Amino acid sequence: MKSEREKMTAGESYQEFDAELVARRKFIRQQLQEINQITDNENRNHRFQALLEETGEHFFVESDFKFDYGFNIHIGDHFYGNYDITLLDTCPITIGSHCYFGPNVGLYTPVHPLDAKRRNADVEMGAPITIGDSVWLAGRVTILPGVTLGNRVVVGAGAVVTKSFPDDVVIAGNPARIIHRLDSNGDVIKN
Amino acid sequence: MKSEREKMTAGESYQEFDAELVARRKFIRQQLQEINQITDNENRNHRFQALLEETGEHFFVESDFKFDYGFNIHIGDHFYGNYDITLLDTCPITIGSHCYFGPNVGLYTPVHPLDAKRRNADVEMGAPITIGDSVWLAGRVTILPGVTLGNRVVVGAGAVVTKSFPDDVVIAGNPARIIHRLDSNGDVIKN
Amino acid sequence: MKSEREKMTAGESYQEFDAELVARRKFIRQQLQEINQITDNENRNHRFQALLEETGEHFFVESDFKFDYGFNIHIGDHFYGNYDITLLDTCPITIGSHCYFGPNVGLYTPVHPLDAKRRNADVEMGAPITIGDSVWLAGRVTILPGVTLGNRVVVGAGAVVTKSFPDDVVIAGNPARIIHRLDSNGDVIKN
Repeated sequence: MKSEREKMTAGESYQEFDAELVARRKFIRQQLQEINQITDNENRNHRFQALLEETGEHFFVESDFKFDYGFNIHIGDHFYGNYDITLLDTCPITIGSHCYFGPNVGLYTPVHPLDAKRRNADVEMGAPITIGDSVWLAGRVTILPGVTLGNRVVVGAGAVVTKSFPDDVVIAGNPARIIHRLDSNGDVIKN
Repeated sequence: MKSEREKMTAGESYQEFDAELVARRKFIRQQLQEINQITDNENRNHRFQALLEETGEHFFVESDFKFDYGFNIHIGDHFYGNYDITLLDTCPITIGSHCYFGPNVGLYTPVHPLDAKRRNADVEMGAPITIGDSVWLAGRVTILPGVTLGNRVVVGAGAVVTKSFPDDVVIAGNPARIIHRLDSNGDVIKN
Repeated sequence: MKSEREKMTAGESYQEFDAELVARRKFIRQQLQEINQITDNENRNHRFQALLEETGEHFFVESDFKFDYGFNIHIGDHFYGNYDITLLDTCPITIGSHCYFGPNVGLYTPVHPLDAKRRNADVEMGAPITIGDSVWLAGRVTILPGVTLGNRVVVGAGAVVTKSFPDDVVIAGNPARIIHRLDSNGDVIKN
């Protein structure tokens, strides 16, 4: 039988007041309060890495970095995150290598039912977010549940990304749309 | 004669440097600095509730929760608010029962004049915000002064809500527009 | 020969791990952690002013105010900034007199290359942001690198400003567009 944690991670309806999940959220909030006040970069980043499922070399995040559980966050090498990044990781958040996130970026995997009766009964689901290699999310980008971004995608500041996009595109707007395609030199392809 | 607090709450032009208002803002900022560092959920939530005009059963907000005065905030039963919610309550903010707010949500009631000369003279007004029952605001939703949302409204992540909407709709975008209508089972009505 | 700081400020490609820049960023983060916890307005604002290149009379910013360096931030008289403002000042950010910023406003000057190979090599550039006199940025406004706003511009809540705009306009949306023009009395010009 699946644990509530396993159901949650799989995106299935789960009990958010499950004892294991409540305890983990409490632990994470205590840790985040403490770690986000550490101004020594090496110390702060090592402490964050210890809470995340997977990180690589050259991991750097500014304060205040916030997430729900940490055990569903997988980040490749050479990650840089600016101020006030929020990752809601009820489902897996997988981020490739060489990704740069501007300030105030939010990746949100939880989903509530559109039906108010089910929502009020605390039914909660979710969908994973997957970000390719060498992706740059500019400031204040929002990524919705279920989105996959390809490699070398650039997301303009303030974009709200509601669906998936392939490799080598520049997207922007609310909802985000393709504004440029990039060639193998990273140059904008003229139409 | 109306106090500045009464004028402000009524949405009329008021003196923001009124002694009562300045003292309240100072008190609230001190309290918020302290309370937002409390990781014990029960303790933190009780402390927040003591500053708000009206709250119900099962009130839960994550840190950092910020507001201006608290005395203009009215929240029904079963409220859940995620990380970093900001409620600017110069005018009343009224939130029904069973409302869920995602992270980085902002409800802003203050209004400044479009006329720079009046704005520079520190003329400030406002308009109330009213949210029905069983409303879900997804992450990074912004609600503007004067907006009323009906019951069972769902607001998509990153939406900027500039006008009022009736019951049983899903809205999204900047400015927010209706993207779905819901039937009495909470199912999307196909056109 | 230009220092890395001078190259950065000029918007040219620079080495972000330059010792002077790393030391300054470390110092600023330590200062911001400390100052953002000060609830006494006068004390907090004086401490912020000491880190900024130029500020005027009647400077007031709420917590948490964040920036990168401070030495590229120039602000005129009568500035008011609400909660959680972020100014990324690798290039100059110049703000006129009598400007009011709502909560969660972000002004971002850094630019990374669209070419992933160059971006991964930590090439970073930037472009200055210039805001006129008597400008009101409502809550959650995002301003992109290179933008200049004229005098008496009003930017609607949640707008993402991707290009420059002249005096006496009201702009909103993502990307921001002109929604009103103002006459010399600050009244909306009817078409």
